[in-house]
Amino acid sequence: MTSKIKIAIFGGSGYGGSELLRILLFHPNAEISLVTASEQAGKAVGDVHRNLNGLTDLHFAKAPASMEELPDVDVAFFALPHGQALSLVPDLPSGVKVIDLSGDFRINDPQVFKKFYKLEHTATRMQERFVYGLTETNREAISKAQYVANPGCFATATLLALGPMVKSGLLNGKIVVDAKTGSSGSGAKAAANTHHPQRSNSFYAYKPFTHQHVPEIEQHLREMGAFDNEFIFMTHSLPVSRGIFASCYLETSLNMTNEDLAHLYNDLYEDSFFIRMVEGSPDINWVKNTNFCDIAFHSNGKQIVVFSAIDNLVKGAAGQAVQNMNLMFGLEEKTGLVFPGGNP
Amino acid sequence: MTSKIKIAIFGGSGYGGSELLRILLFHPNAEISLVTASEQAGKAVGDVHRNLNGLTDLHFAKAPASMEELPDVDVAFFALPHGQALSLVPDLPSGVKVIDLSGDFRINDPQVFKKFYKLEHTATRMQERFVYGLTETNREAISKAQYVANPGCFATATLLALGPMVKSGLLNGKIVVDAKTGSSGSGAKAAANTHHPQRSNSFYAYKPFTHQHVPEIEQHLREMGAFDNEFIFMTHSLPVSRGIFASCYLETSLNMTNEDLAHLYNDLYEDSFFIRMVEGSPDINWVKNTNFCDIAFHSNGKQIVVFSAIDNLVKGAAGQAVQNMNLMFGLEEKTGLVFPGGNP
Amino acid sequence: MTSKIKIAIFGGSGYGGSELLRILLFHPNAEISLVTASEQAGKAVGDVHRNLNGLTDLHFAKAPASMEELPDVDVAFFALPHGQALSLVPDLPSGVKVIDLSGDFRINDPQVFKKFYKLEHTATRMQERFVYGLTETNREAISKAQYVANPGCFATATLLALGPMVKSGLLNGKIVVDAKTGSSGSGAKAAANTHHPQRSNSFYAYKPFTHQHVPEIEQHLREMGAFDNEFIFMTHSLPVSRGIFASCYLETSLNMTNEDLAHLYNDLYEDSFFIRMVEGSPDINWVKNTNFCDIAFHSNGKQIVVFSAIDNLVKGAAGQAVQNMNLMFGLEEKTGLVFPGGNP
Amino acid sequence: MTSKIKIAIFGGSGYGGSELLRILLFHPNAEISLVTASEQAGKAVGDVHRNLNGLTDLHFAKAPASMEELPDVDVAFFALPHGQALSLVPDLPSGVKVIDLSGDFRINDPQVFKKFYKLEHTATRMQERFVYGLTETNREAISKAQYVANPGCFATATLLALGPMVKSGLLNGKIVVDAKTGSSGSGAKAAANTHHPQRSNSFYAYKPFTHQHVPEIEQHLREMGAFDNEFIFMTHSLPVSRGIFASCYLETSLNMTNEDLAHLYNDLYEDSFFIRMVEGSPDINWVKNTNFCDIAFHSNGKQIVVFSAIDNLVKGAAGQAVQNMNLMFGLEEKTGLVFPGGNP
Repeated sequence: MTSKIKIAIFGGSGYGGSELLRILLFHPNAEISLVTASEQAGKAVGDVHRNLNGLTDLHFAKAPASMEELPDVDVAFFALPHGQALSLVPDLPSGVKVIDLSGDFRINDPQVFKKFYKLEHTATRMQERFVYGLTETNREAISKAQYVANPGCFATATLLALGPMVKSGLLNGKIVVDAKTGSSGSGAKAAANTHHPQRSNSFYAYKPFTHQHVPEIEQHLREMGAFDNEFIFMTHSLPVSRGIFASCYLETSLNMTNEDLAHLYNDLYEDSFFIRMVEGSPDINWVKNTNFCDIAFHSNGKQIVVFSAIDNLVKGAAGQAVQNMNLMFGLEEKTGLVFPGGNP
Repeated sequence: MTSKIKIAIFGGSGYGGSELLRILLFHPNAEISLVTASEQAGKAVGDVHRNLNGLTDLHFAKAPASMEELPDVDVAFFALPHGQALSLVPDLPSGVKVIDLSGDFRINDPQVFKKFYKLEHTATRMQERFVYGLTETNREAISKAQYVANPGCFATATLLALGPMVKSGLLNGKIVVDAKTGSSGSGAKAAANTHHPQRSNSFYAYKPFTHQHVPEIEQHLREMGAFDNEFIFMTHSLPVSRGIFASCYLETSLNMTNEDLAHLYNDLYEDSFFIRMVEGSPDINWVKNTNFCDIAFHSNGKQIVVFSAIDNLVKGAAGQAVQNMNLMFGLEEKTGLVFPGGNP
Repeated sequence: MTSKIKIAIFGGSGYGGSELLRILLFHPNAEISLVTASEQAGKAVGDVHRNLNGLTDLHFAKAPASMEELPDVDVAFFALPHGQALSLVPDLPSGVKVIDLSGDFRINDPQVFKKFYKLEHTATRMQERFVYGLTETNREAISKAQYVANPGCFATATLLALGPMVKSGLLNGKIVVDAKTGSSGSGAKAAANTHHPQRSNSFYAYKPFTHQHVPEIEQHLREMGAFDNEFIFMTHSLPVSRGIFASCYLETSLNMTNEDLAHLYNDLYEDSFFIRMVEGSPDINWVKNTNFCDIAFHSNGKQIVVFSAIDNLVKGAAGQAVQNMNLMFGLEEKTGLVFPGGNP
Repeated sequence: MTSKIKIAIFGGSGYGGSELLRILLFHPNAEISLVTASEQAGKAVGDVHRNLNGLTDLHFAKAPASMEELPDVDVAFFALPHGQALSLVPDLPSGVKVIDLSGDFRINDPQVFKKFYKLEHTATRMQERFVYGLTETNREAISKAQYVANPGCFATATLLALGPMVKSGLLNGKIVVDAKTGSSGSGAKAAANTHHPQRSNSFYAYKPFTHQHVPEIEQHLREMGAFDNEFIFMTHSLPVSRGIFASCYLETSLNMTNEDLAHLYNDLYEDSFFIRMVEGSPDINWVKNTNFCDIAFHSNGKQIVVFSAIDNLVKGAAGQAVQNMNLMFGLEEKTGLVFPGGNP
């Protein structure tokens, strides 16, 4: 590419927006034309996200009053609270590509959307044009898409762990996914459930049987294979800042060895730079601040457990969004995303 | 009671022993006659366990060279690494009661014991006299017992969550238990898996399909009801000091409501002071430093999830041991154990 | 005592009130007649402070519309935000004793009060009757007092460390106190500075040269000895829930050895159960959840460093308040306060 | 530069070596020819430092039996325990540049070295050729040096905070530095002071008046200006993985305003990309994983406080080492070091 991709970020003050900025400011093919943040409009990005202090002269802008005032951009990222992209995306100039990090365009069925998000889906036409952005399982569609619905953080960890098993056609019976997230998953605004004195010694479950990522996961499982299994999904809160860990309990119709599993996972992921198969167990410590998803699996006859770990804000949000942008603009998938986390 | 219970603690320098001391020093009917700690022999307890500084004049002693040198005690607690109580208990004077916090006497089948503990069981006769010390489900037997095998921490959290369901006879199909523990579960000695720089940002699984608490749990499930379900148990490490949280995924043969579940749990636990039914989810934050086990459950037709939270060192070890001692000596079960944790 | 002390707690929903409840519910001479919490009125205490679930049937009440509606109590604790006790205390029935945990009655000079608390002092008459409640240095006055201003958490840690040195008359030159607090010092309400994702990896300073505990500390230093030294006091935020650690840098007019220092500290504190002299350094880990203040000191010629550690919510607030209550009612000072923290 | 700098790293398995690898693997002008780690020899770097899994094919090698077997390299980094570089550096081939991250070559006076490191200095000739590697205050000498002694982590934070004040010639009287470090400062091996159950709720002081960074700091303060002030330096342990925070208490001979201070700091650091002046206070959260040093200062007449925050493993070790390498090879100082930390 000779010229850079011109980018607008809607919603730059939250953690998703913050991580988009952290990545895109150092992306060799990216140029940020606009980053909005209503409450922080006018402030320097480095004064709000103090990790970026000294690394950019960008300032937050108000969202344009109408999309006609939008500067000429190639792609718009939406990192807004659920429900806002829904009304903004339809008004974008026609050629602009869209990557939405919210849940607004992940669910195809408006009834299901309404049930889980408590919102009327007001852009169902638009919805049909959205492609689900789980990069490793949906590359071709993403490459050709104008509109990408970036997966939820829990959905990413779960679907990457389950993908090879669902595609194998060997799943039998109930699937149980016990998922845990760090506190940054609750966003950048202080709230009772992220009050440090309490959260720092807490572990608890929330939203039993009702998490909004369930329909998103089930929908994509059906897209990947013949999936009609009972699916139990449970979310828990970890006393760390970053990281999602999913423990997936499966059953297969045939006895399987670890070698059998290795074949399935390698088949699907052998060209996927960001999927790392690890021994024993992944650890959120080794993926933090990175776009990697670490996966381990163990068989015991027909009983299978698969573990996956990601950084909820990177592979679970901004990193995967940029990975999708790369595909949508014909760049190598990992451009701008090959950076390690620290040790320790 | 007019006189106090005279107590020996074998293994007072680890976390189990430390918590026994913390509780028994303030127990109105207890008197500690001996506390051993080979490496710390001669040192003041308050210099080793600095939380007890100023609260006791006790000193650690060497283990007696032979049990004939043992002072006259009513009960001996064993808080030693696995394998040591096995050779010490048979030599005790005949009238002394025993509460063993290790895994040495929890497994009835010596073959199973050997498989999971990598040790020959050298006291199988003795084994027959041991009663499993899960207080809430085994009160009568414990009350009459001379020898009690105190449950493992994971086993306690899991069995208290599953007890009412197993007793109901309504369980159907596979049981999945996803369990998480704080770092104090690894003991008081520094090791790679508890190295702070790494552990403080970690979450990972360990010992898939092979944890030594599995046979202990299955054995007691069979004692409680008609249990022959597939049982999947997985352990994970939390980046906190104290706490165990178990997420138990069950299926019933009939549709159940939350009210149905409430009946089952209340039936079994209505007289159990240390079991608290809570809304939504328990949180390890609210049981830390206490002998409580908090439980919540949710139904979705035939799919059931039960959450339990305990302090691994109290209800999961020393607290339950003292609770058993109370029963064995005819005291009220909660004597010396009614203390709250802090908020936050 | 034959009858129990009847107690009202104004402000029971914050951390100070929560810890008062945790302590007083188990105090052998205490009976809680009223605990107010405007936002939580009507709720069970154990539903709000879930550590107390199952341990009390108390419910929160609204503050009485007028003090005439106050039930018959012997003592009222005030654990309200700064500025509220100021208007409530003057209206109390005349015989009721008062222990105020806020800053409202700690500063004798209304001008200084106004400067640091940004409030007009509206009860200056009342102020004259208040005694400063640093138990170990002010026992006699507290024993006879009707009104006690309970010290701030930073002030407690600092004054207990400096007391023996100020009383010695040997201090020379500038005093520097570098103080650090856990996040619970910010109270029970969520706020930006206690947002877990950020706070859990943070350490920073705040309020340089302007902390409101400075005048309180200086005032009591002058009460204790001939103090006119330059006094530099700096507050910092620790990424833990509980604990204050003060590092105090002093200079003496004569060379001093550690033995000399030991004499000074023992002279003042030999009968003080809650002051523990320790080797090397105190550690907030060993005082958490307790009323202890651990102190260590080191000399290097005329340069002296003194370290102190307390639990900000116990010795730094509710614990010391109860210690003062004990004195005011002729009880042994440590009644209801002899409980250890956990290890680890 | 047309060709890459060929690099040997002695001691690649500790945290210093790990961070050197993390940085140099992505440095545009660097090529790692050798990385030694005696215990891990033969293992893949990505299997030991699991954050680098998938990012390099490097393997650890044994240290060469003799320096004649050393591959042709341009520079050797030493990230070994104290005392080892001392015997290795003199045997290096003559043209090889050296950057030593240990304390072996930081102290000019062998008597002082012996006192603080408990070791005989066996390479005093070599010592004379070493330049102190505090980049921002010693650029010219570093640019021309063949041998650089990379500063200690505490020394870096302290000296960068004090530099402008010492150079101003306005310091008067005693200097107190209260410094705090994260647990990674203790290295990659598990030890009692980094045992997670305890460390995670701890804050304590250590090595009062005797820390080995004191002579290093005093020596460089004298190199920077007319320094003969009393210097009190105290180290403390924080319950976080990464970060050093130094609170420096100073006195000036004249009254100073914050503007006066700003002039001093800007004069010295205006061309220093990695020094960021911040409002209020720096926070270790905002420098973690980066080479930045954030500084804030406040005046109150003649009393001055300066706060500085760094990542102990980056600006306090590996990052500054690479910064020095850049200068020694004529590269732009910030090459390979311009990466942000995360938010949160």
